[in-house]
Amino acid sequence: MTTIKESNTLTQPGDLIELISPTNKVYIFKLTPGKHLQTNRGILYHEELIGKQWGTEVKSHIGSIFYLFQPSLFDILKEIPRSTQIMYPKDIGYILIKMSIGPGIRIIEAGSGSGALTTALAWAVGHEGQVTSYEIRPDVKNLAEKNLKRVGLSDRVIFKNADLANGFDESRVDAVFLDLPNAFDYIGQVKEALKPGGYFGCILPTANQIIRLLGALPHHNFQSIEVCEILLRNYQPIQNKFRPTNRMVAHTGYLTFGRLVINNEAENGQT
Amino acid sequence: MTTIKESNTLTQPGDLIELISPTNKVYIFKLTPGKHLQTNRGILYHEELIGKQWGTEVKSHIGSIFYLFQPSLFDILKEIPRSTQIMYPKDIGYILIKMSIGPGIRIIEAGSGSGALTTALAWAVGHEGQVTSYEIRPDVKNLAEKNLKRVGLSDRVIFKNADLANGFDESRVDAVFLDLPNAFDYIGQVKEALKPGGYFGCILPTANQIIRLLGALPHHNFQSIEVCEILLRNYQPIQNKFRPTNRMVAHTGYLTFGRLVINNEAENGQT
Amino acid sequence: MTTIKESNTLTQPGDLIELISPTNKVYIFKLTPGKHLQTNRGILYHEELIGKQWGTEVKSHIGSIFYLFQPSLFDILKEIPRSTQIMYPKDIGYILIKMSIGPGIRIIEAGSGSGALTTALAWAVGHEGQVTSYEIRPDVKNLAEKNLKRVGLSDRVIFKNADLANGFDESRVDAVFLDLPNAFDYIGQVKEALKPGGYFGCILPTANQIIRLLGALPHHNFQSIEVCEILLRNYQPIQNKFRPTNRMVAHTGYLTFGRLVINNEAENGQT
Amino acid sequence: MTTIKESNTLTQPGDLIELISPTNKVYIFKLTPGKHLQTNRGILYHEELIGKQWGTEVKSHIGSIFYLFQPSLFDILKEIPRSTQIMYPKDIGYILIKMSIGPGIRIIEAGSGSGALTTALAWAVGHEGQVTSYEIRPDVKNLAEKNLKRVGLSDRVIFKNADLANGFDESRVDAVFLDLPNAFDYIGQVKEALKPGGYFGCILPTANQIIRLLGALPHHNFQSIEVCEILLRNYQPIQNKFRPTNRMVAHTGYLTFGRLVINNEAENGQT
Repeated sequence: MTTIKESNTLTQPGDLIELISPTNKVYIFKLTPGKHLQTNRGILYHEELIGKQWGTEVKSHIGSIFYLFQPSLFDILKEIPRSTQIMYPKDIGYILIKMSIGPGIRIIEAGSGSGALTTALAWAVGHEGQVTSYEIRPDVKNLAEKNLKRVGLSDRVIFKNADLANGFDESRVDAVFLDLPNAFDYIGQVKEALKPGGYFGCILPTANQIIRLLGALPHHNFQSIEVCEILLRNYQPIQNKFRPTNRMVAHTGYLTFGRLVINNEAENGQT
Repeated sequence: MTTIKESNTLTQPGDLIELISPTNKVYIFKLTPGKHLQTNRGILYHEELIGKQWGTEVKSHIGSIFYLFQPSLFDILKEIPRSTQIMYPKDIGYILIKMSIGPGIRIIEAGSGSGALTTALAWAVGHEGQVTSYEIRPDVKNLAEKNLKRVGLSDRVIFKNADLANGFDESRVDAVFLDLPNAFDYIGQVKEALKPGGYFGCILPTANQIIRLLGALPHHNFQSIEVCEILLRNYQPIQNKFRPTNRMVAHTGYLTFGRLVINNEAENGQT
Repeated sequence: MTTIKESNTLTQPGDLIELISPTNKVYIFKLTPGKHLQTNRGILYHEELIGKQWGTEVKSHIGSIFYLFQPSLFDILKEIPRSTQIMYPKDIGYILIKMSIGPGIRIIEAGSGSGALTTALAWAVGHEGQVTSYEIRPDVKNLAEKNLKRVGLSDRVIFKNADLANGFDESRVDAVFLDLPNAFDYIGQVKEALKPGGYFGCILPTANQIIRLLGALPHHNFQSIEVCEILLRNYQPIQNKFRPTNRMVAHTGYLTFGRLVINNEAENGQT
Repeated sequence: MTTIKESNTLTQPGDLIELISPTNKVYIFKLTPGKHLQTNRGILYHEELIGKQWGTEVKSHIGSIFYLFQPSLFDILKEIPRSTQIMYPKDIGYILIKMSIGPGIRIIEAGSGSGALTTALAWAVGHEGQVTSYEIRPDVKNLAEKNLKRVGLSDRVIFKNADLANGFDESRVDAVFLDLPNAFDYIGQVKEALKPGGYFGCILPTANQIIRLLGALPHHNFQSIEVCEILLRNYQPIQNKFRPTNRMVAHTGYLTFGRLVINNEAENGQT
C-alpha cells in the first residue's frame, strides 16, 4: 500500500504482490526468494517474479498466464488471513462515506476482528490520521496487528487489548465504529469518546440486535439515526451472456449510523 | 471539509454548516450574516447560528429543534446542487474501495457532472493526491467547479473542458473513472492515460451499454473485469416497528471495473 | 373471471372489461350503456365498447388507441377498490404455491381487507373449493364482499364478521392465512381449524411482529416453519435501453409459513 | 395431489408421501412395502409408514423424529427429479397470477424440461383445464411425463415431441409460456396459437436474450409488455436471531409477459 505511487519501480524482494488468474482467482503474498506458489495452473517461483514491472503478464511453470499487480485494497480486504467473519468491501465503502472517514480523521473501532475494517480505515485516514482498534481477545488482536503490518499500515493503528466496559481511553475523536455482538451495551462509552457532532457506526447481523440498539441510542443523545443494508449483486462479465451470477451473499449485517448531539444545557456549560 | 479536525472551534461566518431536523431533513448552507433559512418548522437566522459549538441543538423562531453539524460527506453528496443525475453514495463508496482510491492517489474522471463523485474523490485523495475532471459541457463544468469550491476542495481538482476523443493530457495515472453514456468509445484513451496495473471504473445505466463495454475492454488489455450493482435498502429506525422502508431506489447503474495489463512484448521493450 | 373460456363471444353490457393504454395504464370497469370513461387521452363511451371482440384496439374520441381485454387476475388485484393496504401479486403468487392452494381446496383467511387475496384464493380454488373470509370491521367486510361480487367470484366465498378470539367456526380446513397485525395472538385458534398437515401462512410488515410469531408457532405444534420476502424488480421493456426501473416497492411484508403436526399421543387417540 | 381432500384417510401403499426432518430436509417418495429410506438420521421402513394419519410424527430406527405429510406443491416442485435446470416456485407463483392461470384454462408450454412448471400448471388448471407441453428432446419429454405421472397429474397434460418451427397444433388457447433459449424465434408461432387477448410469458436468463425478445414481440402484435425479476430472500426462522440467511439464489431468469392484440382490420374481417 505504501508503494502505491512508486509505479515506475520494479518488483523486489519483500514486496506484497497480487497475482490474478484468467478466471479472476486472486493470490496475495510477500515476494520471498526461495519460495514458490502452487496453483491449479502450475507453479510460480518467487525469484522469477522479482524485477518485473507491475501490471505485466507472468507465467507458471506449465505456461499458464497470471497478471502481476500491486494488491488492490479491495482484494486485500477479501483475502485477509482471518480467524473471524470479516467485514465486506460493500459495507466498508458505505461506512467510509457515511461516517466521513478520510485523510486526517481520528477514529476508534471495536473489535478489531481480523483487521479488515482496520485496514480500510488506516488506508483512508492517511499518515495524518489515527485509528485506535480495541479487541478483547488477545489472539484475535495479534492476528489483526499482523495483518496490518503485512500491508504496511500498522504505523497508523494503535491496537488495544481492553474491555470496553471500562470505556475508551480517547476523547473527542471524530468517529467510533462498533463491530460487537452486544454493541448496544457500550453506547454510553461511545458517547464519552466522541466529539460533539461525531459519527457513530455499527454492524449487527440480527434484527433483534438492531431493535435493542435502537432502544439504546436515543438515551445517549444520538440523532440522525439511520439503519440500512448494502447488497452487492455481481454479473457475469461475458459480452454475449450478460446476466447476474447465480448466487450471492444475501446478508452480512444491518448497518446503523448516528451523530452525537449535546443538549443546550451542556453547551451553555462549555461555552 | 477542511475544518474537520478543528472540532473545538465555534461556528463562524463563511462556515459551511448542516442543520438536520428531527425527521432527518437536511439543510446545508454557508453561514452568511443577514441571511435566514426558511423551513416548514420555522425560520432560522444565520446570525443566531454563529458562535455555536458544533453538534448542538438550535431552534427556529417558533421553537422547533434542529441539530447543527459540520456537513457530513454523505449529506454533501446527496444535497449537492445539480444540473444532472448525480452519483449515489452507495456507488461511490464501493468505487473508492474497488479502485483503491485513498490519500496520495492521482485519478482522472470524465465527465464531471454536478461534481458529486469529484467531491468524494478530492476528499479521499487528500492534499497530496490529485483529481483531474474532464467535462465537455462548459455550463456543467462550471457548476461542478462551483460545487467543489463551496466545500473547500477545489485546490485538489483540475477541471478541463475538453473532448475525450483527443485523449487525456495525463499519463501513468493510478485510476480513471468514466461516467459517460458512450464510455465504450474511449477505452483506448483510458489505456493511454493509465499506468500499468492501473484501475478502470465506469457506471452505465443500461444492459445494452454494458454489453458494448464488455466488447471494448479486452481489445485494450483490461483484465480482472467485474460488473456489479450496489443496492441500498433503508430501514425505519423505529425500535418497535423495525422494517424496511416502503420504497427504494431500484437502479442507479451497473458498475464495471478492470485493471490495465501490459503484455510481455511491451514489457520487454520497457525494461 | 367466469367468462374466461368463452373467448369467442363479444363484449356485452355488464361485462367487466379492461382497457390498457399504450403506456400500460390500466382501466377496469363494468360495461354500462350511457356511461363513459374519461382519460387523459380522451373519452371512451361504453356503448361503443359493446359488441367488440376481446383483444382488439379501440379508440377514444380524440383517436387515441386502447386495448380491450378481459381483465387479468393480476390487474384486478392491483386495481381493486381499496380501503386498506392490499396484498401484492408477487406475494400472493408465492402464497398459492407455498400453501398448495388449487382447485378444490378449503381455506380460511382473516382479515378480508379489501379482498385482494380473497379474490386470488376464490379464483384458484375453483367452484369446487371454498374460501371463508373473516373480517372484524363491518365496513371493510362490505367492501371486500362488493369487490368479490364485481368480479363474479362471490359464490365461492363466505364472509364472516366475527372476532377471532372466539375461534373459527370451521374445522379440518386445508389452509389458514392471516393478514392481521396481531396474528401471533390467534395461533391456537388456527390450530383448531386446521387439519393435521394443514398449511399456515401469514404476512406481517415488521421484524418485531415476526419475532413474536416465531415465539408462538412452536407452542402450537407448527413445523417446517419458513420466513421469507418476495422482491419484485421491474425492467424498462425497451429494446435498446434495457435496465431496471428507477424505483421499486422495497417492502410489503415478511411471509411466514408452517404446517400443523399432531404428536403421537394425539394420533394414538384418534386411530 | 389427487388425494388432497381426503384428509381423513390414512397412508396406504402407493401414496406419494413427504417426510420433513427437524432441520427441514425434505424427502418425497412413493410408499412401497419392502423399501426403506436411508437418511443421516437413521432408516425409515416404508411398511412402518403405512396406516398412519397425515400430519403425524414418525421415527427412524434410531429414534429421530420426522413429520409425515401429503407432499406440498412447493416441495414437489423443488424436489422434482431433474435432467435440466428447473423453474423455481418464486417464478412459477408469479407466472400463475400474471397469466391468469386457474381452473379451466387451456395453456401451452414449451419446452417441458423436467416438468416443474408443467406440474404447477396441471395442478392450477384443474381437471377441467388442459396443458399441452412441447419438448424437442425425447429423453427430456419422457422424464417430464414420468414426473407428472408420479404426482397423479398426467391426465391433464398432453406431451408432444415436436419442433416448434412448424408451429403449434392448437389454436385460440388462453396462454402460451416459453422456456426456450431462443424463445424470440417462435413469437409468430405463439401468435397463431393464442386467442386474441391471450397471455404470452417467457423466462430467459440473459439480458442479451431479453433484448432480442423485446425486438420480436411488437412485430407480432403483443402489447402490455412487462419484464421483471422475482427475488426470494429467506430468513432464519429463529426467534432470538431473526435475520436473512447468508446466501441466496441471485438469479434464475428474467420474466417477460405480454398480451396478444388483433388490429382493427382483422377484427372487421372476423365479426
